[in-house]
Amino acid sequence: MPFLLQHTDEKTSARAGLLTLPHGDVETPIFMPVGTQGSVKTLHPAELEDLGAQIILGNTYHLWLRPGHELIKNFGGLHDFTTWRKPMLTDSGGFQVWSLAKMRKITEEGVRFQSHLDGSKMMLTPELSMEIQASLGSDIAMLFDECPPYPCEEKYASKSLDLTTRWAKRCKDWITENQPLTNALPQHHFGIVQGSIYADLREQSARELVELDFDGYAVGGVSVGEPEEEMFRAIDNAVPFLPKDKPRYAMGLGTPPQILEMISRGVDMFDCVMPTRIARHGVAFTLDGPIHIKNLVHANDQRPLCESSHPHVSRFSRSYIRHLFRAGEMLSLRLLSFHNLHFYLSLTRHAREAILAGTFSEFKESFIQRYNAKQTES
Amino acid sequence: MPFLLQHTDEKTSARAGLLTLPHGDVETPIFMPVGTQGSVKTLHPAELEDLGAQIILGNTYHLWLRPGHELIKNFGGLHDFTTWRKPMLTDSGGFQVWSLAKMRKITEEGVRFQSHLDGSKMMLTPELSMEIQASLGSDIAMLFDECPPYPCEEKYASKSLDLTTRWAKRCKDWITENQPLTNALPQHHFGIVQGSIYADLREQSARELVELDFDGYAVGGVSVGEPEEEMFRAIDNAVPFLPKDKPRYAMGLGTPPQILEMISRGVDMFDCVMPTRIARHGVAFTLDGPIHIKNLVHANDQRPLCESSHPHVSRFSRSYIRHLFRAGEMLSLRLLSFHNLHFYLSLTRHAREAILAGTFSEFKESFIQRYNAKQTES
Ligand SMILES: [Zn+2]
Ligand SMILES: [Zn+2]
Repeated sequence: MPFLLQHTDEKTSARAGLLTLPHGDVETPIFMPVGTQGSVKTLHPAELEDLGAQIILGNTYHLWLRPGHELIKNFGGLHDFTTWRKPMLTDSGGFQVWSLAKMRKITEEGVRFQSHLDGSKMMLTPELSMEIQASLGSDIAMLFDECPPYPCEEKYASKSLDLTTRWAKRCKDWITENQPLTNALPQHHFGIVQGSIYADLREQSARELVELDFDGYAVGGVSVGEPEEEMFRAIDNAVPFLPKDKPRYAMGLGTPPQILEMISRGVDMFDCVMPTRIARHGVAFTLDGPIHIKNLVHANDQRPLCESSHPHVSRFSRSYIRHLFRAGEMLSLRLLSFHNLHFYLSLTRHAREAILAGTFSEFKESFIQRYNAKQTES
Repeated sequence: MPFLLQHTDEKTSARAGLLTLPHGDVETPIFMPVGTQGSVKTLHPAELEDLGAQIILGNTYHLWLRPGHELIKNFGGLHDFTTWRKPMLTDSGGFQVWSLAKMRKITEEGVRFQSHLDGSKMMLTPELSMEIQASLGSDIAMLFDECPPYPCEEKYASKSLDLTTRWAKRCKDWITENQPLTNALPQHHFGIVQGSIYADLREQSARELVELDFDGYAVGGVSVGEPEEEMFRAIDNAVPFLPKDKPRYAMGLGTPPQILEMISRGVDMFDCVMPTRIARHGVAFTLDGPIHIKNLVHANDQRPLCESSHPHVSRFSRSYIRHLFRAGEMLSLRLLSFHNLHFYLSLTRHAREAILAGTFSEFKESFIQRYNAKQTES
């Protein structure tokens, strides 16, 4: 068992755990920075270590298309290729095919599509997704699933879910047959609970995946445009049917308050492009909510982005970072990305500390209250 | 006297010196990374220290227009604004007006022009350039000059030079009257020798500036499109008339072999945007000449950019950096910029070591021979 449940909160379902992976341990709850194309945008791997990142994410679709998983395999995997030595999780590629590729056609076999890079015709199947992720050598590989859109009719959601379960079985067969290793240890595999907004489908999906016995379980099909309450409900509909002794991962989420809400619902792992994406729009997270650095109000502000900022960033004034951003200087994107990832990594670390100290509820309420109090910028 | 001449090479005119500035010492020959808008492109100031940068350059024109010298002055100067604590040199703004601004009109008073940012009508004069640079609080401020284009008739070059000398006197008057300080010590000022390709004008310019007695002297109007031999000749025509006990600065130069040629002609200081600009085009300097990282030949190359690379960059393969560059990942621009600045800073440091060891000629010949031997990429 790679997951040690260290403490469960008394007032909520929040958990603190320790995930033992081939490239090292991960303390949960954890936020995983996203390194789409083998690089967490703007950052050097040494900076990620400095930030206390324990596990990062790589995107199978992007890396398969460019530079290609065979090239990365020749380097000994994504760790050797990128020089990131700590754990990595790779997604299945399915979500990117759905959101980026052209001319998608889903069949029983897999998904046909055209590359968003050069239009070439390609096909991704459960077996190929597993093979690519094995070549990348991630610590955790995600099963290949279909992620239905929002909104979605129950009938479509149900058929989609059945396909996801059949694909999960094919993934399992491939894993059993090929026994992929990373760092000379078995690669781990997470199933993905689907079922859209339908409680009975979420339950069915969770039960079918648990039956197949994976190393952990993700809740997918969230953060696809649904209202926030539907997002929470999807988690609430899935979590009761997932084993307590396996890690739970909510994919592609969310705002800082949403992360805390998810933790209180028993989720252990998160990933989100928001910290780095929003940085490119000049937005910095602060304990008082997000600020837009290009706003005039920051022009003469000698304070750092946030009192909680990392020394790597807090040495600079808002005024200076604003100047860099307006002047188109890349350093501003580096500083904002670094700062925002520090904010998210601190958030899950503080949540974990609060869970272990038995003060998670208070931490969550007080964080969210302050975060939402000033609604001057959004 | 802020300049201690430590050793002069026996076979060439190369010199090793120590420049004592308000924010610290600078060992010459020295390369100065260019921080146009208050940031050396893509790099964090901590990385510049890591690279061994001893002095960096800021551009008066850019910082005057945005964020404005008054704002920077309110922060206590460019050092406090940017958090770079070591010496800085600022140019006069004249060259940028000449190369970037629209509707330029040179009069006795100064230069009228329209801002390249918003078209607003502005005027830069010798006194204003000195005032802006005093507000920025650089360690070395450059005099306001006119930089004639190449090619340039002797008659125009002569009249332009006379104007530059009259402006130098006005700068000197402003300095005498205002006694600008930086880090509580006197700001230093360098005159700029002009005269285009005309030996007698270069001599005249040097003599007139030396007569006015500045802290150092630059050779300007080079690297403006002239052939390489004219560039060397401009230095040769100016250096004999400059005092041995003052630092000499060749502005805006050049390729690695050109830097060594200039050092052998008695130049002590260099600045050039090439290391960071060329990085944005995917070019890395190596001991065997420049390489284009996007070339297919690097696709599977597990070697670092260069055997001389800094550990911050040498941990990555050419293959990985190529992938990042093709994928549009900013990390590639960071790594290439860092690498190229390391290459230039190592070049001047090794030149200095060779001068002190009495082996400069051999170092220069062997460096240039290897650098030019493989002409596969250029
Ligand atoms: Zn906003
Ligand atoms: Zn080239």
